[in-house]
Amino acid sequence: MKKIINQPEDVVNEMLEGLTYAYDQLIERVPGTTVVAKKNKEQGKVGIVSGGGSGHEPSHAGFVGKGMLGAAVCGEVFTSPTPDQVLEGIKAADQGAGVFLVIKNYSGDVMNFEMAKDLAEMEGISVEQVIVDDDIAVEDSTYTAGRRGVAGTVLVHKILGAAADQGKSLAEVKELADKLVPNIKTLGVALFGATVPAVGRPGFVLEDDELEFGVGIHGEPGYKKEKLQPSKALAQEIVAKLKKEFAWEQGEKFGVLVNGLGSTPLMEQFIFMNDVKALLEADGLVIEFKKVGDLMTAIDMAGLSLTMIRLEDDWLAQLNHPVTTIAW
Amino acid sequence: MKKIINQPEDVVNEMLEGLTYAYDQLIERVPGTTVVAKKNKEQGKVGIVSGGGSGHEPSHAGFVGKGMLGAAVCGEVFTSPTPDQVLEGIKAADQGAGVFLVIKNYSGDVMNFEMAKDLAEMEGISVEQVIVDDDIAVEDSTYTAGRRGVAGTVLVHKILGAAADQGKSLAEVKELADKLVPNIKTLGVALFGATVPAVGRPGFVLEDDELEFGVGIHGEPGYKKEKLQPSKALAQEIVAKLKKEFAWEQGEKFGVLVNGLGSTPLMEQFIFMNDVKALLEADGLVIEFKKVGDLMTAIDMAGLSLTMIRLEDDWLAQLNHPVTTIAW
Repeated sequence: MKKIINQPEDVVNEMLEGLTYAYDQLIERVPGTTVVAKKNKEQGKVGIVSGGGSGHEPSHAGFVGKGMLGAAVCGEVFTSPTPDQVLEGIKAADQGAGVFLVIKNYSGDVMNFEMAKDLAEMEGISVEQVIVDDDIAVEDSTYTAGRRGVAGTVLVHKILGAAADQGKSLAEVKELADKLVPNIKTLGVALFGATVPAVGRPGFVLEDDELEFGVGIHGEPGYKKEKLQPSKALAQEIVAKLKKEFAWEQGEKFGVLVNGLGSTPLMEQFIFMNDVKALLEADGLVIEFKKVGDLMTAIDMAGLSLTMIRLEDDWLAQLNHPVTTIAW
Repeated sequence: MKKIINQPEDVVNEMLEGLTYAYDQLIERVPGTTVVAKKNKEQGKVGIVSGGGSGHEPSHAGFVGKGMLGAAVCGEVFTSPTPDQVLEGIKAADQGAGVFLVIKNYSGDVMNFEMAKDLAEMEGISVEQVIVDDDIAVEDSTYTAGRRGVAGTVLVHKILGAAADQGKSLAEVKELADKLVPNIKTLGVALFGATVPAVGRPGFVLEDDELEFGVGIHGEPGYKKEKLQPSKALAQEIVAKLKKEFAWEQGEKFGVLVNGLGSTPLMEQFIFMNDVKALLEADGLVIEFKKVGDLMTAIDMAGLSLTMIRLEDDWLAQLNHPVTTIAW
């Protein structure tokens, strides 16, 4: 294993120290926790909290800041944070108007975030939640009942964060979230597996000429392995699956996110975006929002995912709403 | 070679198409060129132009926008753009107050940018320039007489871009640049070599337990190979070399940039930043600016570099001056 680390058991703590030092004008670590919180509180606004296992940087701490998350709760690498840590995140994000939890659909996260919700309510904080299950690759998976939550979660952070910033109530954020999540779908492809520092070898191995469609962001199995293909062919496979899910029609408005999984250069992500563009234009879609980059990674996995969002209501304006974060 | 591309000879063109499609609200491709230009011109302000070989994404096009670059000229992968392309970049960035060229010290770039400067002056555009040579690793290198220009170049873009945005004249920008560049120094370490798509194999190979200090951003040789070390030891080596160059004293003000070389996860970059912090604090430096991320990459090289800038005059304010770019 070739990594720039010290002891594998210290990676999360040292990462959080380096992160909060580097951006101490925006964020702070809640002492004695693995919670990264927004520095300037805004009383009377709903606080949005997300998080999960570490290894998905810049998610989730990179999206903490005005207009997006109030706090991110960071577990060990690819391991859900405990309920007491999530409770600390809820307290840190509470600005007197309730707290909303954005949970990626992984069994551990769902259980621990829901337990923390109960604990917070016992302490008098109103809490609502949504479970994001945007990955269309498989119906159930290694660590998940139902579909997994992956890169589309960042768009949920962005839109709900904008709504909270605009002064929406907890009930309004909940209503928005429940409508939003079914309109976000993602599918990815992996070229190399990720290496968890404490494990020291890749979680799965692909042959030199092999790739896998639909791998999860912790290396969970996808739906098929194939020989290496040109970007155009990858785009065709992925767009066709998304098209079937959305059953889109000419003239419909969408947003598009190409997300790098960790070690795939921006050069490749932009080339893939160009191939996606051709397919979406051929279908007559109106693409009103686009973004490319490493937003929800799987440590050093190679590959990328394509997220699409069907744009309704004020979602486009909320995607474009100004934020002050490290990584949006 | 496992990459998400189509034909190797098409990577730059397709990347530029994907990039300018994704961010068409900010930037545009000058038709028939490899120039990416700012979309909204601001008459009366100096235009800053940079560029070089592709493969360093998000440099340089990711820094085109209000407050930073007026245009980026993109060559083939790791290959300088031709003088006629640089001339197109100068024309695209010209807002009636002259154009300033930020050139990384590589022989091809210096020659081609200087030829373009002469061509532009023949067309009546005033042009000044600075050559950035921030890499302290070696005195001369494979493609360079003198020290190489690497990640510190992005800080030059940022500070000169702010000065131009503040309405400084071409002569004032030139004076600032000449004072600024000697106060920016960088040193890096590589764990894996980069693969140029048209070559198909890494430009250099390190053993499984080996790293190399001072590798250039095109894979040029560094100053020593060593066995894999903890992040703390890498930070010690790199900070010690920078300390010797700067000959800093307790209480001096600096800025710090940890730059990922392409396939190194943010997790590792933040851990390294934490180790750097301890060393700089021990020396009593005042660190007033910090940034971490992939800003000047070498395609899929693994590793990172540390850039330090001794802060004088208004440089801190200029680093914090607001910008509208994809990647700052």
